[in-house]
Amino acid sequence: MNAKSEIKRIGILTGGGDCPGLNAVIRAVVKTAIFRYGLEVIGFHDGYLGMIEDKARALEAADVSGILDRGGTILGTSNRDNPFRFPAMVRGRKIFRDVSDQAIRNLRRRKIDVLIVVGGDGSLSIAQQLFQKGVPVVGIPKTIDNDLSATDVTFGFDTALEAAMEGIDRIHTTAESHHRVMVVEVMGRYAGWIALEAGLAGGGDVILIPEIPYDIEKVCEKVKERNRHGKRFSIVVVAEGARPKKGEVVVQRMVEDSTDPVRLGGIGFKVSSEIEKRTGLETRVTVLGHLQRGGSPSAFDRILATRFGTRAVELAMEEKFGRMVCLRGRHIRDVDLKKAVTKLRRVSPNGNLVQTARSIGITFGD
Amino acid sequence: MNAKSEIKRIGILTGGGDCPGLNAVIRAVVKTAIFRYGLEVIGFHDGYLGMIEDKARALEAADVSGILDRGGTILGTSNRDNPFRFPAMVRGRKIFRDVSDQAIRNLRRRKIDVLIVVGGDGSLSIAQQLFQKGVPVVGIPKTIDNDLSATDVTFGFDTALEAAMEGIDRIHTTAESHHRVMVVEVMGRYAGWIALEAGLAGGGDVILIPEIPYDIEKVCEKVKERNRHGKRFSIVVVAEGARPKKGEVVVQRMVEDSTDPVRLGGIGFKVSSEIEKRTGLETRVTVLGHLQRGGSPSAFDRILATRFGTRAVELAMEEKFGRMVCLRGRHIRDVDLKKAVTKLRRVSPNGNLVQTARSIGITFGD
Amino acid sequence: MNAKSEIKRIGILTGGGDCPGLNAVIRAVVKTAIFRYGLEVIGFHDGYLGMIEDKARALEAADVSGILDRGGTILGTSNRDNPFRFPAMVRGRKIFRDVSDQAIRNLRRRKIDVLIVVGGDGSLSIAQQLFQKGVPVVGIPKTIDNDLSATDVTFGFDTALEAAMEGIDRIHTTAESHHRVMVVEVMGRYAGWIALEAGLAGGGDVILIPEIPYDIEKVCEKVKERNRHGKRFSIVVVAEGARPKKGEVVVQRMVEDSTDPVRLGGIGFKVSSEIEKRTGLETRVTVLGHLQRGGSPSAFDRILATRFGTRAVELAMEEKFGRMVCLRGRHIRDVDLKKAVTKLRRVSPNGNLVQTARSIGITFGD
Amino acid sequence: MNAKSEIKRIGILTGGGDCPGLNAVIRAVVKTAIFRYGLEVIGFHDGYLGMIEDKARALEAADVSGILDRGGTILGTSNRDNPFRFPAMVRGRKIFRDVSDQAIRNLRRRKIDVLIVVGGDGSLSIAQQLFQKGVPVVGIPKTIDNDLSATDVTFGFDTALEAAMEGIDRIHTTAESHHRVMVVEVMGRYAGWIALEAGLAGGGDVILIPEIPYDIEKVCEKVKERNRHGKRFSIVVVAEGARPKKGEVVVQRMVEDSTDPVRLGGIGFKVSSEIEKRTGLETRVTVLGHLQRGGSPSAFDRILATRFGTRAVELAMEEKFGRMVCLRGRHIRDVDLKKAVTKLRRVSPNGNLVQTARSIGITFGD
Repeated sequence: MNAKSEIKRIGILTGGGDCPGLNAVIRAVVKTAIFRYGLEVIGFHDGYLGMIEDKARALEAADVSGILDRGGTILGTSNRDNPFRFPAMVRGRKIFRDVSDQAIRNLRRRKIDVLIVVGGDGSLSIAQQLFQKGVPVVGIPKTIDNDLSATDVTFGFDTALEAAMEGIDRIHTTAESHHRVMVVEVMGRYAGWIALEAGLAGGGDVILIPEIPYDIEKVCEKVKERNRHGKRFSIVVVAEGARPKKGEVVVQRMVEDSTDPVRLGGIGFKVSSEIEKRTGLETRVTVLGHLQRGGSPSAFDRILATRFGTRAVELAMEEKFGRMVCLRGRHIRDVDLKKAVTKLRRVSPNGNLVQTARSIGITFGD
Repeated sequence: MNAKSEIKRIGILTGGGDCPGLNAVIRAVVKTAIFRYGLEVIGFHDGYLGMIEDKARALEAADVSGILDRGGTILGTSNRDNPFRFPAMVRGRKIFRDVSDQAIRNLRRRKIDVLIVVGGDGSLSIAQQLFQKGVPVVGIPKTIDNDLSATDVTFGFDTALEAAMEGIDRIHTTAESHHRVMVVEVMGRYAGWIALEAGLAGGGDVILIPEIPYDIEKVCEKVKERNRHGKRFSIVVVAEGARPKKGEVVVQRMVEDSTDPVRLGGIGFKVSSEIEKRTGLETRVTVLGHLQRGGSPSAFDRILATRFGTRAVELAMEEKFGRMVCLRGRHIRDVDLKKAVTKLRRVSPNGNLVQTARSIGITFGD
Repeated sequence: MNAKSEIKRIGILTGGGDCPGLNAVIRAVVKTAIFRYGLEVIGFHDGYLGMIEDKARALEAADVSGILDRGGTILGTSNRDNPFRFPAMVRGRKIFRDVSDQAIRNLRRRKIDVLIVVGGDGSLSIAQQLFQKGVPVVGIPKTIDNDLSATDVTFGFDTALEAAMEGIDRIHTTAESHHRVMVVEVMGRYAGWIALEAGLAGGGDVILIPEIPYDIEKVCEKVKERNRHGKRFSIVVVAEGARPKKGEVVVQRMVEDSTDPVRLGGIGFKVSSEIEKRTGLETRVTVLGHLQRGGSPSAFDRILATRFGTRAVELAMEEKFGRMVCLRGRHIRDVDLKKAVTKLRRVSPNGNLVQTARSIGITFGD
Repeated sequence: MNAKSEIKRIGILTGGGDCPGLNAVIRAVVKTAIFRYGLEVIGFHDGYLGMIEDKARALEAADVSGILDRGGTILGTSNRDNPFRFPAMVRGRKIFRDVSDQAIRNLRRRKIDVLIVVGGDGSLSIAQQLFQKGVPVVGIPKTIDNDLSATDVTFGFDTALEAAMEGIDRIHTTAESHHRVMVVEVMGRYAGWIALEAGLAGGGDVILIPEIPYDIEKVCEKVKERNRHGKRFSIVVVAEGARPKKGEVVVQRMVEDSTDPVRLGGIGFKVSSEIEKRTGLETRVTVLGHLQRGGSPSAFDRILATRFGTRAVELAMEEKFGRMVCLRGRHIRDVDLKKAVTKLRRVSPNGNLVQTARSIGITFGD
């Protein structure tokens, strides 16, 4: 089918935080490579770490059987795997070294013709750096927060959204039975997509997102207004990156990197205790946290991940290196890897989603 | 906010088969109408039947509280509600009469300035006819099969797809444990979207859709080939409108209209018994049927339905009558109601989704 | 811990229809055998077939990692595996032979000291026959219909019940929106437990079970009475083994053995078409079928299966052969294998569950 | 049917924390009272508060239609409703008064012949006090933690367990992909049932419960031992009431009463930070919190709640006042209300469940 291609063997790794759909990508890459092009596939363990330490294994069709509906990644991932800034302990001191040449040597020794990198902005930036050093690379975007501007949407977001909505659905009955204000903190450090969409889907009354700084007085007003109209409960959906218009900014949890668990749920607790103090109404917090990352991927995510995986192998065969697959409307496209990781996709305060929310009476606290 | 508008009261009805997200539409229409524009809303019962027989009620904000996560429609629907061809029994014989003037009179007597119709091609065609008779109408598309060309996607499809995928997921373990061929019949009389996407998402091995007539020999070849490679089970996903390339066409179940339940699951049983006969392998059928229509809508469907509902009220206020809301890429748009219902959106046999499926080894029996 | 025991190696097989929780049993047997007693475990493939044909593999702790939440059985199962009546084709004719000596020889050659059989009445009867021929056997009951009198409940039932209830929940919204009678056929050939409990849990209006023959007139009366009281929909839950008081008995589907798929859903269709004919109300059927067997086991089933698996290994170590584990109230007990398979546990027409159903207005058609 | 009974009207209230199944109880009480006995039913709002302030409404069959699958309670509940110790502000100071006579007067003026109280130990103790003052009372136990000794199990627990297990299932994939220790804090202040059973069902490696004080060294040993055997992740399930053998006891969150949200998740964070410090392995915490109380009740809980509701009305008709319904094995029984609330049902450290957990390699840190 592609007789002239020089591509015989592709490598694949999954970097950054785990995300529902990674296994569907791996499966699609392996099946397309083997069934359609007769290639070999090598999977590196734990992101770039496997490339640096040369830990990898051949992936056959049997290895990806039964993983489509599984969360996580069978290849593993790691938060400490940057080959251009790899941590090492030298005489009791932590230093960072560039071990990219070693990583590239491992790639060549394994006769890998193209490397497919599935990752977020961090992992894709490294992919771009490797590409500049001559490594044939194809990228697949992964960001559960959906904050990459180069693609309309990535896999993982829909599953996370569904999990967040189910969480809010569950909390609704307690709110209503106990006449309470329930604060639900969801993911979204820089972009409020999950809070906005889960708030819309779960029937939230207040939604606080990083893109629209809030005034706690406005939030409390809404809660009190509902109370006056006989609605004795309210649901407040808070993105972990939400911040007040003025006053002290809460030090946020760093979802993937923090080692100080005390900070978990910072903003949710802050908002909750202020509402309780100012309104006198019973208030409770739930931090959805890792529940949003796990579980079986939704149909949408499994399909998108499969399309991305298949298209990435096609790009490899077409020798379109330094490119990243993406979704535009309903179409799979590809963009320059360099451009892909430069801009954050954030909620527009004047966009249709926010306007829709306002139209049905949701407050953003602004 | 819209001081000059003459619109004071809007009517709403839901027609055709039920669909997850209808309640989210109703809720968004009522909340937007009341909170944003200060309008009154009248809901007709059981589609156009309520308009013909003048059965309706005022909808307040309290009436739409707690319905966002509920399937079905609080307004009810009916399959026999065409005012231009309304059945009546006259001297023991069924005749059809045009009662549209009566329906329009009811609308006027209730001082309804705009009628919002949520429905599929049948209900929207009637809406277009009413518009031609001078009724100010705004349409919202509803088709669980996703086969309306005027919109990229409608609410209900995502939930149905998820239900179909979950059904296939469940059946997988039995297939694998018993080394069986499992045939799963899903919705899709004219378009194979649910079969195609649920097949992709659920890990189907064979997908049969109306757009690609199948050869049963090719289907059996795939099943036997898998067996030779040690895969002793296969999942065959069949759209109810799938048909063989040649030979007798199975009389299909008419999902919403049939009164002869014996026909249910026609094509699934036909495919199953032929596979069993030709391969000698144990084969079982599951017809998902109504399980795909019910249940709580997915986050995607709740959000899309909410956006459609809010936008429909905006169109009403802008006096853009004879229009239908739709989704283009990620944007809410509107199209001429006349054009909206003329063309079926079907799976392209050469499109990216089918190609992706073929790339990972799925067979369409062609 | 058990220094004197002669038991060094145990075998395990899973027979009969698949059932959520089988993998949890296998996992518990393997982990208890290895971690607590330092034994070896051999798993036979496809029920007794693996013993007859000597197809088996050693099971290590790693082999049972990650299977707790998976439906089905990693060992496979088979419907044609009776060593005392094993089918063979001799000169084009199917004959049955006793190959039990061959099966026992395989067991001995593999130095298996005890055989743990997980199965329903068929597989356990065979286990009892093997025990009489001198094979040290321990049984674990498996019946998704919950119709074994020797145990209060077995694993699989709770998951099937949950699936049946979710199916009814989904169908409710369509019933209500369309003002229809929805007939839902669930498992239960000889005992109506799933129909009764899913009907109670799902809000059914009529429940038809094998233990209480129904009069279709009484069923229709109920439906019409609801209609008169403004309840324009009804949910009728039918066990596949339900039968009318008089008149022609429908030939039932043989769930696990039938090769004639046309019979699937016999009674559901019969009941549905009679209701439609007699009441004139729109009626639809859904046959839940295999959806009830698959999917991830519920917490209850995972725990019960784990307790059964662990206790079976203890019985093996205590050399209590010819016994079967069971649940009595909240306690794990064991009974004589001989007694275990003789009596069917059926719904008592005067028991508390049926009385509770009647108290809240549910009709059994009697 | 019960011609001689003097009972004409029954009252019902739901007290304490909300719990899946409360609506199923209310529905069963109303339906049994109306359909079987022709009684009237009055529902008090917000627990005893409605009785004190005389806020109540008649409950008809239509009022309980469609609530079977809903979490929470349509009657509402309150944490501040003890008529024997009712808080009031007098000259800026909070005092407690006995307003039980007023509450009883309201009951009599409404001609309520029996009061059905659905509640935990707090609400049932009040019911017992009212009974001693001459109020005809029947109790229905409600405790999501399953820690009431007078009944084998109550509704709500199975749903909470399922939610906790699903949470652990979701977290598994992240644990495995990232090679992390994941700590999951679940409900259970005085009894470890949810932690124990969810740990068994979710495949936990360490389970910490109030009944078995833990040694953090033992916990870390287990985690490190798994690591040595190539299992680079561990799941630690912690009941909120777990406590170390020695050293400072963490001040626990008071689930329903705390107004200091900072304490939420105390023990989970403590355990997590100590594991990270001592093992050097990445550790994360998830506090399931209110997610365990909400959502649609499981089939088991809907059925048990329905049986309790129906039986409570029977007890009322039999004039067996001062009694509480309960479950013994598979049978509905009743016990003296006085005895019902005196003893806590806790996990036995030597019981079968704990032994089963140990047999498959789970550690309790003791």
